[in-house]
Amino acid sequence: MNNPITRPRYELEPVGWVESPLVDRAFAPKQGDEGSPEAWLLFDDRFSQALRDLQVGDEVIVLTWLDRAKRDVLVVHPRGNPANSLQGVFNTRSPDRPNPIGLHRVTILAVEGIRLRVRDLEAIDGTPIVDVKPVLDRRLER
Amino acid sequence: MNNPITRPRYELEPVGWVESPLVDRAFAPKQGDEGSPEAWLLFDDRFSQALRDLQVGDEVIVLTWLDRAKRDVLVVHPRGNPANSLQGVFNTRSPDRPNPIGLHRVTILAVEGIRLRVRDLEAIDGTPIVDVKPVLDRRLER
Repeated sequence: MNNPITRPRYELEPVGWVESPLVDRAFAPKQGDEGSPEAWLLFDDRFSQALRDLQVGDEVIVLTWLDRAKRDVLVVHPRGNPANSLQGVFNTRSPDRPNPIGLHRVTILAVEGIRLRVRDLEAIDGTPIVDVKPVLDRRLER
Repeated sequence: MNNPITRPRYELEPVGWVESPLVDRAFAPKQGDEGSPEAWLLFDDRFSQALRDLQVGDEVIVLTWLDRAKRDVLVVHPRGNPANSLQGVFNTRSPDRPNPIGLHRVTILAVEGIRLRVRDLEAIDGTPIVDVKPVLDRRLER
């Protein structure tokens, strides 16, 4: 498993992009419900059929590729606070991690063709979207 | 955005693999809590520091790359049942979707170095693991 020749790689293709007033990672909320502004999800029109049953009021999990993250970081001070003891990144929600996939639970506020307006998204403007999934249980999922 | 020359791609690198008695996608449960056997998560030892604070009893979200999924599918009959009307894949948990990332909420039953034993994982044997994240709120997340 440690032979580089045999290590597989998988290719992610963005299906859309975030349009948000948040432009600086340093000032973005740490989690979506910590003061995020409303944002748009703009999808590539090749994927319009995949979107077709999403409706206003639905809660969905948006998966993003946090393209400004550092992929060689394995331990961090949670929430970027040096007073918090170092933790392995798999025990944190740090964007810095080997595969920087973001999970964002949001509520759909408007549907306009291939654009969805959402609440509670802390991803910054221009972040690639790689997937959208329905919340399976409103009470149990975030 | 539809010019192939300008479409970005991102490369995922597995950080580990699933070891499970489940070997056939056709017989695997649709969701983790629908009869999944216990399974092991085996990590590449290059990522051992990222794991170091995970403990028995922790609930985590495992992200996998569903490498046997079909990536050109945009609409499906939910749960593979033709009696269910066709839905856009972003409104389903179908493994067939443009970027087949699996989300699995599991409970850690044992930690043995770079191996974690878990409950409620429906991914089949050999599935690549791409990330692990803590559940933020036990009551709200799945």
